[in-house]
Amino acid sequence: MDHWTIYLSGEIHTDWRAQIESQALAAGLPVSFTAPVTNHEYSDDCGVAILGSEPNKFWHDHKGAQMNAIRTRTLIENADLVIVRFGDKYKQWNAAFDAGYASALGTPMIIMHEPENAHALKEVDAAALAVARTVDEIVAILRYVIAGELKLTKAAAE
Amino acid sequence: MDHWTIYLSGEIHTDWRAQIESQALAAGLPVSFTAPVTNHEYSDDCGVAILGSEPNKFWHDHKGAQMNAIRTRTLIENADLVIVRFGDKYKQWNAAFDAGYASALGTPMIIMHEPENAHALKEVDAAALAVARTVDEIVAILRYVIAGELKLTKAAAE
Amino acid sequence: MDHWTIYLSGEIHTDWRAQIESQALAAGLPVSFTAPVTNHEYSDDCGVAILGSEPNKFWHDHKGAQMNAIRTRTLIENADLVIVRFGDKYKQWNAAFDAGYASALGTPMIIMHEPENAHALKEVDAAALAVARTVDEIVAILRYVIAGELKLTKAAAE
Amino acid sequence: MDHWTIYLSGEIHTDWRAQIESQALAAGLPVSFTAPVTNHEYSDDCGVAILGSEPNKFWHDHKGAQMNAIRTRTLIENADLVIVRFGDKYKQWNAAFDAGYASALGTPMIIMHEPENAHALKEVDAAALAVARTVDEIVAILRYVIAGELKLTKAAAE
Amino acid sequence: MDHWTIYLSGEIHTDWRAQIESQALAAGLPVSFTAPVTNHEYSDDCGVAILGSEPNKFWHDHKGAQMNAIRTRTLIENADLVIVRFGDKYKQWNAAFDAGYASALGTPMIIMHEPENAHALKEVDAAALAVARTVDEIVAILRYVIAGELKLTKAAAE
Amino acid sequence: MDHWTIYLSGEIHTDWRAQIESQALAAGLPVSFTAPVTNHEYSDDCGVAILGSEPNKFWHDHKGAQMNAIRTRTLIENADLVIVRFGDKYKQWNAAFDAGYASALGTPMIIMHEPENAHALKEVDAAALAVARTVDEIVAILRYVIAGELKLTKAAAE
Amino acid sequence: MDHWTIYLSGEIHTDWRAQIESQALAAGLPVSFTAPVTNHEYSDDCGVAILGSEPNKFWHDHKGAQMNAIRTRTLIENADLVIVRFGDKYKQWNAAFDAGYASALGTPMIIMHEPENAHALKEVDAAALAVARTVDEIVAILRYVIAGELKLTKAAAE
Amino acid sequence: MDHWTIYLSGEIHTDWRAQIESQALAAGLPVSFTAPVTNHEYSDDCGVAILGSEPNKFWHDHKGAQMNAIRTRTLIENADLVIVRFGDKYKQWNAAFDAGYASALGTPMIIMHEPENAHALKEVDAAALAVARTVDEIVAILRYVIAGELKLTKAAAE
Repeated sequence: MDHWTIYLSGEIHTDWRAQIESQALAAGLPVSFTAPVTNHEYSDDCGVAILGSEPNKFWHDHKGAQMNAIRTRTLIENADLVIVRFGDKYKQWNAAFDAGYASALGTPMIIMHEPENAHALKEVDAAALAVARTVDEIVAILRYVIAGELKLTKAAAE
Repeated sequence: MDHWTIYLSGEIHTDWRAQIESQALAAGLPVSFTAPVTNHEYSDDCGVAILGSEPNKFWHDHKGAQMNAIRTRTLIENADLVIVRFGDKYKQWNAAFDAGYASALGTPMIIMHEPENAHALKEVDAAALAVARTVDEIVAILRYVIAGELKLTKAAAE
Repeated sequence: MDHWTIYLSGEIHTDWRAQIESQALAAGLPVSFTAPVTNHEYSDDCGVAILGSEPNKFWHDHKGAQMNAIRTRTLIENADLVIVRFGDKYKQWNAAFDAGYASALGTPMIIMHEPENAHALKEVDAAALAVARTVDEIVAILRYVIAGELKLTKAAAE
Repeated sequence: MDHWTIYLSGEIHTDWRAQIESQALAAGLPVSFTAPVTNHEYSDDCGVAILGSEPNKFWHDHKGAQMNAIRTRTLIENADLVIVRFGDKYKQWNAAFDAGYASALGTPMIIMHEPENAHALKEVDAAALAVARTVDEIVAILRYVIAGELKLTKAAAE
Repeated sequence: MDHWTIYLSGEIHTDWRAQIESQALAAGLPVSFTAPVTNHEYSDDCGVAILGSEPNKFWHDHKGAQMNAIRTRTLIENADLVIVRFGDKYKQWNAAFDAGYASALGTPMIIMHEPENAHALKEVDAAALAVARTVDEIVAILRYVIAGELKLTKAAAE
Repeated sequence: MDHWTIYLSGEIHTDWRAQIESQALAAGLPVSFTAPVTNHEYSDDCGVAILGSEPNKFWHDHKGAQMNAIRTRTLIENADLVIVRFGDKYKQWNAAFDAGYASALGTPMIIMHEPENAHALKEVDAAALAVARTVDEIVAILRYVIAGELKLTKAAAE
Repeated sequence: MDHWTIYLSGEIHTDWRAQIESQALAAGLPVSFTAPVTNHEYSDDCGVAILGSEPNKFWHDHKGAQMNAIRTRTLIENADLVIVRFGDKYKQWNAAFDAGYASALGTPMIIMHEPENAHALKEVDAAALAVARTVDEIVAILRYVIAGELKLTKAAAE
Repeated sequence: MDHWTIYLSGEIHTDWRAQIESQALAAGLPVSFTAPVTNHEYSDDCGVAILGSEPNKFWHDHKGAQMNAIRTRTLIENADLVIVRFGDKYKQWNAAFDAGYASALGTPMIIMHEPENAHALKEVDAAALAVARTVDEIVAILRYVIAGELKLTKAAAE
């Protein structure tokens, strides 16, 4: 496979996507990354901004969420691998929704989160092929599964 | 269709499932309901209880979550309709995961939650064919979509 | 196959469904019929009647149409055969939508309409395995394809 | 995703396709557009023109409609996004058929029509992720979902 | 599996279907058999008999063949096992078509024919899980694969 | 769609494939053609030539037919359009098998044969979107469905 | 779900299937079990016993293995859950093949083996939702995932 | 088809992959090959090397096997052809697992092994379209099925 397309779902308030992208490209991996629109305001208001305002907040949200779905479902369905990051803020139900969606499609999935969320995320983690904590781990996984590159130092310690 | 099988996903700390079931049966609907194991302790500890304890909490959770997945994925894949309720406690990422899973399968879905969670759930709601708040609404929807029964009182007010 | 489930889509203002059902049952065919909710008012107002009124007519319609979709998509996906009747009133875009839906699922389809609509329906007819005009023809097709019964009188005239 | 393929279904008597294409290309979007054969006479007569005339108008239409289906089904199945425009003339059952077809495939869909058709199109709209009225709205949606570009002016008015 | 549904495709001029059915039932196998309409005249003329005569033989045939397809495709898609018999008369392209259809569906297939057709049928045979010559062999296969019953006499001769 | 891949199944003893290819390329169509191995001797003996001879002709054929299936199934599954030509010699059951295979995949199909085979091929024709007789007709169809080009002379005669 | 169908793949030289069945039935679980033909001699010789002997052992085996596949693939495709047991003898590649087959179908899977095979089976175990060692564990899992019954004694020890 | 992607599964302790690749490229075939990570130590320890050590060998293996599955499942699902080689060492259950996986996907498969394993591999072989012994045979098959090139010398001997 010449090229892997990787969808980066979840948290939009830190630069974890940019870090993964820059490290993956620096490592020369044949990958491209896709993502939802990560501008929070755009994501909330795209529906009404383009198709007209809604006095009822529910339909305001509905219009935007359906518009975002044009992008996100298309990108998830076209991804070879889905990485979902849960951050430390917000409900992040959309991240868990994406994980369920990718899981039903049979797309390999890596979940990324801090240990304190492990219990609450156990069903999501159980559907993944790897559970990571840091960007470095994610990039190391990509280097291994795509290019076969591995540093055995940690394992050597066993 | 002689019979509808409906999976009730999500909140396990209130009796919403029992209420829906009793009202649906009272209405004579040809339905049966399925659900995850709703005993919280069972759900957390089933893996280690059956297959042996794990000193590491992550694997304790992993064993249980995978065992629960034998049940939940089978039941979701066999459901004609999936209803997902978000309650007022816990992260409930597994509920959102189920919603994403059902959505990717193309199974019709009803989401049930209080209005204060509407914004956080907008991507989940946007994938549903109905968003309800109460058990009465859910049962009214079932009566309508399965048996064609409807009380037009509310609409009449318009 | 012990039993055929047949979805009757389209026109809701004449009793064509009842005629097909009574004739099919009289013929002893092992069939059951499913259909959308055929009460026009119910179909238009179900969403707001159950989930609350909407001042904006677009969302009034949207709520109802999505609620109807819980029923119609489930029944179409569970049908062995889909029969779509185009009557002489209204736009009937939902009937054509159902035909496209069934066609993409690969479900055999019979279209029923008067000759004057033939040109406008040519793409829909082209996706069907039979194009009929009357209830008698429909029932004759069902008797043939399900029970192997045929009266050769017309053909004998050739 | 490097490139989006977008199928433009429906009305063939105005230049809405050309407008969308020119604006999308002007915006630098990585898209290509596909469409049915939009020459009305060709579309009606292709079957008999190539495979021989038919005295019976039904088979004249049938031959043409099936030949068009070679193109339209292939293009719809290869589209990442389907946009269906309903104009102000004709029955346009083929447009609704395409919408049903795309919906069953799970392909994201945008419907485009004037407000006066909203009620008659409610089932079609309910299957879409956006309902637009103008070419400008369509292009704005494409810019947002493909390139993440958005002007927040309208929303700002709220 | 409580019950196997077996589609018997191909030759309609001998009583091989009746022989298989009576022997299978005599053996107490939990099976039911489905088949095309085996009345040759019905099969040829069903289209025009029901939907009106056609002066052009091609459309006469087309109407009948599409009507038969309502039955045959539905039954093949619902079969657990497809048995295709090639007799000693006619082109029997429809039998080979059914074999290809079942093969693409991934349905297990048994082909039944005399040795003299083996070379001409090699691509069809290559897609089957067994190639038999007689009704006795077919019934022996059914007894083995469904009920686990086998007489080892022939093998004992090795 | 930038490019169409078209599988040419069936008769291997005339140069119909080369004619279609040269005319299609001359017309500037963005197509590529795939086909089975058309060397008859190769096709019959490939299995034993590579993997060792078989004294039993059945296994000789089986080895070859399965080896050819590596090519033919892969190419059919990757085709946007399948054209199947029935010639005037041989049983050609493999051609009918390919037609059934493509039909079950939902791939658009054109059948090409002389009128004298029309009745025997009626089930195969009924699964196609066009039935043609000559290379010129095939190329005209390709020019129309791929490039939208049509000469209306024949139709004008009506 | 009223009933679960469970396929028991793998080892045929001990009575593990009978133990699971009797305990599951004793527990009142709504299950039925399916399995390959477990008579080793039958399984090896069925092909030649029914369809004629083969001097070449490869084809002797091929005929039998393909005949067994009629049963095993049908049963695996109809199973809600697949349990694969690796015993202490033989290569058991067919058991691992079944596990891969079930995994690609997305069917939940439990693997059962002694700890000494854990490293060699790590890829197979990694595709399962539970890895068990004893019949008691298997039955405890079935009681939990199907009936929600659990004894928490082991977990209590933690 | 311009290009074939071929997954080489199984044995990792001889250079059979490199031999096939160099011969295929020397023959000018339009192919690319994919494979699991063939460094045995990497394959065993990747999980703990990247995500942290595990005191329990079972989880050590599980982490590694799931990480390898990110690569192997993606590559198998993207392969046009899967070749599985069984060597003379180890249990090689992962090779048989891959064969079952590819078989359920319907991907054409070639199995490669020494004759002494033929009986134990009969179910795996029965799911393949060719069973080969040497690299030369494999490359000859690829030249034939991809480029239509064949040397008839062996067959000529018959």
